[in-house]
Amino acid sequence: MDTGLLTTNNVWMMLCTALVFFMHLGFSFLEIGLTRQKNTINILFKNLFIICIGLLLYCLVGFNLMYPGEFNGYFGFAGFGLEAPMKDGALDLAYNEGYTYWTDFLFQGMFAATAATIVSGAVAERIKINSFMIFAIIYVGLVYPIAGSWKWGGGFLDKMGFYDFAGSTLVHSVGGWAALVAIYLLGARIGKFDENGKPKVIPGHNLPLATGGVLILWLGWFGFNGGSVLSADPALTSLTLVTTCLAAAAGGVSAMMFTQFLYKNLDLSMFLNGVLAGLVGITAGADQMGPTDSILIGLIAGILVVGAVALIDKLKLDDPVGAVAVHLVCGIWGTLAVGIFGAMASVDQFLIQLTGVAVYGAFCVTTSFIILIVIKKTIGLRVTKEEEIEGLDEHEHGMSAYPDYRMNDN
Amino acid sequence: MDTGLLTTNNVWMMLCTALVFFMHLGFSFLEIGLTRQKNTINILFKNLFIICIGLLLYCLVGFNLMYPGEFNGYFGFAGFGLEAPMKDGALDLAYNEGYTYWTDFLFQGMFAATAATIVSGAVAERIKINSFMIFAIIYVGLVYPIAGSWKWGGGFLDKMGFYDFAGSTLVHSVGGWAALVAIYLLGARIGKFDENGKPKVIPGHNLPLATGGVLILWLGWFGFNGGSVLSADPALTSLTLVTTCLAAAAGGVSAMMFTQFLYKNLDLSMFLNGVLAGLVGITAGADQMGPTDSILIGLIAGILVVGAVALIDKLKLDDPVGAVAVHLVCGIWGTLAVGIFGAMASVDQFLIQLTGVAVYGAFCVTTSFIILIVIKKTIGLRVTKEEEIEGLDEHEHGMSAYPDYRMNDN
Amino acid sequence: MDTGLLTTNNVWMMLCTALVFFMHLGFSFLEIGLTRQKNTINILFKNLFIICIGLLLYCLVGFNLMYPGEFNGYFGFAGFGLEAPMKDGALDLAYNEGYTYWTDFLFQGMFAATAATIVSGAVAERIKINSFMIFAIIYVGLVYPIAGSWKWGGGFLDKMGFYDFAGSTLVHSVGGWAALVAIYLLGARIGKFDENGKPKVIPGHNLPLATGGVLILWLGWFGFNGGSVLSADPALTSLTLVTTCLAAAAGGVSAMMFTQFLYKNLDLSMFLNGVLAGLVGITAGADQMGPTDSILIGLIAGILVVGAVALIDKLKLDDPVGAVAVHLVCGIWGTLAVGIFGAMASVDQFLIQLTGVAVYGAFCVTTSFIILIVIKKTIGLRVTKEEEIEGLDEHEHGMSAYPDYRMNDN
Repeated sequence: MDTGLLTTNNVWMMLCTALVFFMHLGFSFLEIGLTRQKNTINILFKNLFIICIGLLLYCLVGFNLMYPGEFNGYFGFAGFGLEAPMKDGALDLAYNEGYTYWTDFLFQGMFAATAATIVSGAVAERIKINSFMIFAIIYVGLVYPIAGSWKWGGGFLDKMGFYDFAGSTLVHSVGGWAALVAIYLLGARIGKFDENGKPKVIPGHNLPLATGGVLILWLGWFGFNGGSVLSADPALTSLTLVTTCLAAAAGGVSAMMFTQFLYKNLDLSMFLNGVLAGLVGITAGADQMGPTDSILIGLIAGILVVGAVALIDKLKLDDPVGAVAVHLVCGIWGTLAVGIFGAMASVDQFLIQLTGVAVYGAFCVTTSFIILIVIKKTIGLRVTKEEEIEGLDEHEHGMSAYPDYRMNDN
Repeated sequence: MDTGLLTTNNVWMMLCTALVFFMHLGFSFLEIGLTRQKNTINILFKNLFIICIGLLLYCLVGFNLMYPGEFNGYFGFAGFGLEAPMKDGALDLAYNEGYTYWTDFLFQGMFAATAATIVSGAVAERIKINSFMIFAIIYVGLVYPIAGSWKWGGGFLDKMGFYDFAGSTLVHSVGGWAALVAIYLLGARIGKFDENGKPKVIPGHNLPLATGGVLILWLGWFGFNGGSVLSADPALTSLTLVTTCLAAAAGGVSAMMFTQFLYKNLDLSMFLNGVLAGLVGITAGADQMGPTDSILIGLIAGILVVGAVALIDKLKLDDPVGAVAVHLVCGIWGTLAVGIFGAMASVDQFLIQLTGVAVYGAFCVTTSFIILIVIKKTIGLRVTKEEEIEGLDEHEHGMSAYPDYRMNDN
Repeated sequence: MDTGLLTTNNVWMMLCTALVFFMHLGFSFLEIGLTRQKNTINILFKNLFIICIGLLLYCLVGFNLMYPGEFNGYFGFAGFGLEAPMKDGALDLAYNEGYTYWTDFLFQGMFAATAATIVSGAVAERIKINSFMIFAIIYVGLVYPIAGSWKWGGGFLDKMGFYDFAGSTLVHSVGGWAALVAIYLLGARIGKFDENGKPKVIPGHNLPLATGGVLILWLGWFGFNGGSVLSADPALTSLTLVTTCLAAAAGGVSAMMFTQFLYKNLDLSMFLNGVLAGLVGITAGADQMGPTDSILIGLIAGILVVGAVALIDKLKLDDPVGAVAVHLVCGIWGTLAVGIFGAMASVDQFLIQLTGVAVYGAFCVTTSFIILIVIKKTIGLRVTKEEEIEGLDEHEHGMSAYPDYRMNDN
């Protein structure tokens, strides 16, 4: 056991944990920035709730569901709460040479909350907060860790050779599938489609915060992907940061140019979504790609996200922040890209990746549908028409996010 | 001397220093978010002033007051300015194996400014800026480092066995006591209490920035508590991050639920204060607790902060951002909790912790009262009624924070 | 080869890279905060464009232009794209003991985009976005790396003994000179000078974001200067952070006091510019100074920035965010200060520093003038009068940054 190297590795992993934590501010700013001011408190409340409850649940059950040790590959549980391995009265540092037990828990715990946060953006401006909180508890506490165990916990998909470095599927698609189911069950916001079914733009109320959110997310991705090396290995971590940043840059540029080509508009929101598309797209194979691969993956992700946003509109679905386009579509793209580009590219790998995508799709669609339909049939999913028009901040929280400013009615 | 380990330790400590520095943005956003737009420039100006003057004063006198080396345990001073230990023309790395002399200064310097920043929030919207600047100079330059020397400088409370890992008392209560004295001497803002003395809510003008502030503070606490290990020791640092995050999450959840129970309202401000309460509460013993301990400490802190906010209202005191409830009440709670939970729990330790709380309370109340009463009797503490109503930004700074926006009159 | 030390060094360098990346959010918030709301989207779009295209161009040509290996000292090019040194099928870690090839590229790539971002602020509110994008591509892709090669790539100025630790000249002045040329060619914004040529204040629309931007930039400077040590050397990195922070604090305080003395106003914008002035000023010699030197450099930088802002007004130039005063004037000051203060101070060194300043000035003024005049004579530099009055957001992007808020007409 080289304690010096463990110390260095652990420093890296702790700082990556901090960066992933900070992504929650990125998501919060992005989501409120792309929605209307009257629902701002509601979104901030939901996101804060998810971080807090996510960490507590991951401590109580999630960590031991996701990493059950030896198990049947489908479902395992190592017991409630955390139990740090001890040796001679001190933490046993032989646990792993990349990190301590505590760092392991916290890094993974930060990931757990992310999946539900992705859903939060998609259902914004019309979901009942109590219903969302119940959904989030079940999805973060049970669905995410069980799904995660199949690959990162050493389960059946891992044994099959499925590869997902940092979670294009395990985090982003897991959130994205639930977002898709939720917006289907919820229906569109009032005013999103006119009487002929033509989609209308409902502009976000604060683009500086949305942009700040995306740059904070990009920063957080240094930890999200960089930390997924699970040590500070200099070659792998630094390669990962390069592929991550190049894909983000390429995704932004291609989404921006494609939007300009299609709609003759230098659209900031699409530029932002393009950056996120590149980041989600590179996540499954960030350690397997070279610079050119990662630029190509990003370029394609940027085009996909623009197309997906248009498609979702066509399907009469309403996703205020583009969560499905970014996290689900580009999450799938990134997962498949592992079989197309980089060190692991092969037809076989591509088919395995496709299998993984399908398995996660089936599981997440099923579970999120069951949870949400039960909520819908019992306490209901959606606020009343009046509440939606007047805003969730006033009705669910009795507060305004900006009481000193004069606002337009919308 | 293991230079490799020193290098790793020092990297950790430098990055923790950066995170603690970043907390000043967190405080700034939180304080302006929870107050009215007409005083925004004033608050930002004060906070920027405190960081700048705080660092310069800590360089000039504070560091050598707080760490005077061998001293009588009550007051010592190692001389003006910094004097780095040299050996053969280079910095002597044998200074400490956890960090260099420079890192030591900068990490501690970042802490110093925090105490005064806590006061800044409490006195917002009505204090004269010149008066505040004078107070801040004396409090950061003299009171904080002298108080700090009693424990962290190896003074009499340290010898007595008093424990305060990262400053529930030394930083947060030291700021909190002064905040309490200041709001007592200043009086409430116009409009805070109606003619019958019933408190009125004066809502903060920008909840997204307030939320951003709290998440930045939580991020900063990775450095505040993690760096207080004073090395990158993998077991201790990572345990500290886990206890810190679990307490924050628990504090947020309990404050949120308790507010919902008491007032039937999903109140975002209280949720935010609950997170901070958990963070302040765990700070004194973050390295001594297990996960369950830290969740319990956070849960209780979250309830305490809700009660304390109500109590302060009852006492006709006006603390716009809840600084006394968060930093003083939960700072005391965290300090006492070291005697109740975790590795050091014992009746004896509890009594020592209580003694420490009392000593710091007596010293900080006395010194801040003397400073503030002298200022009050000479140049005055409070702006005129007209200035307060029209806003400090216009009168003290001749600027508006948001000239392009239309604002309500309040 | 000590892999343990490389791992630690590389962790530090990767995190510094992340911090420098984060500066782009700082610049974005600062620039929009100090300008009018009607041009917010435009500024955010430009800045996002610069980061993305900057990284891609640096990957394609910049890195190999800036670090061409053995070359004639004036111009060299090591070929298109990245080519990581390999050994036995893995990344050759013998590349450098401070960082890997990938980290080297990414750290330097983050610097590249900064120079163009500096220009972005100066030309805000009136430049055509297509024209700016063309300029940015050429300046980031060719001018910056060629200029950089003369010193950091081991070119003729390096051989002459010119010193610029982290880029007072190579980054900040290179951006600042282009900013100066651009605002000269563009002309002032409508309404900046009245019929008698008297300058009018056009207040920034969001001072909290401007302040947030400066604090984020200060945080980023931990990586900008700290990473410029090019390893985690504990003595040098920690000294660098101390000099950086002390200069920032001193710059803020002196600009604030000098403004109060001149204009009897506690001006937040000038305080912010003072902090940046101190940061830019210390950058050339952050590793060569002691605490007192750095405080003096910061104090002088704070005074210079106040004077320079007034001078630029007098010259009828219009620089909305003070980019020339901060980055050019204080960049020159910082470069010269290496010959005046600290370990390298001497008349000879001062003259060498002066030579370097002149060489960079001549090159950057010439190249930026040629690029911008060609753009001006062909597609034009400036938007129409109507577009400028109604705002670039509406005309160039068809969006509003704040659609829910009621705004004043300005």
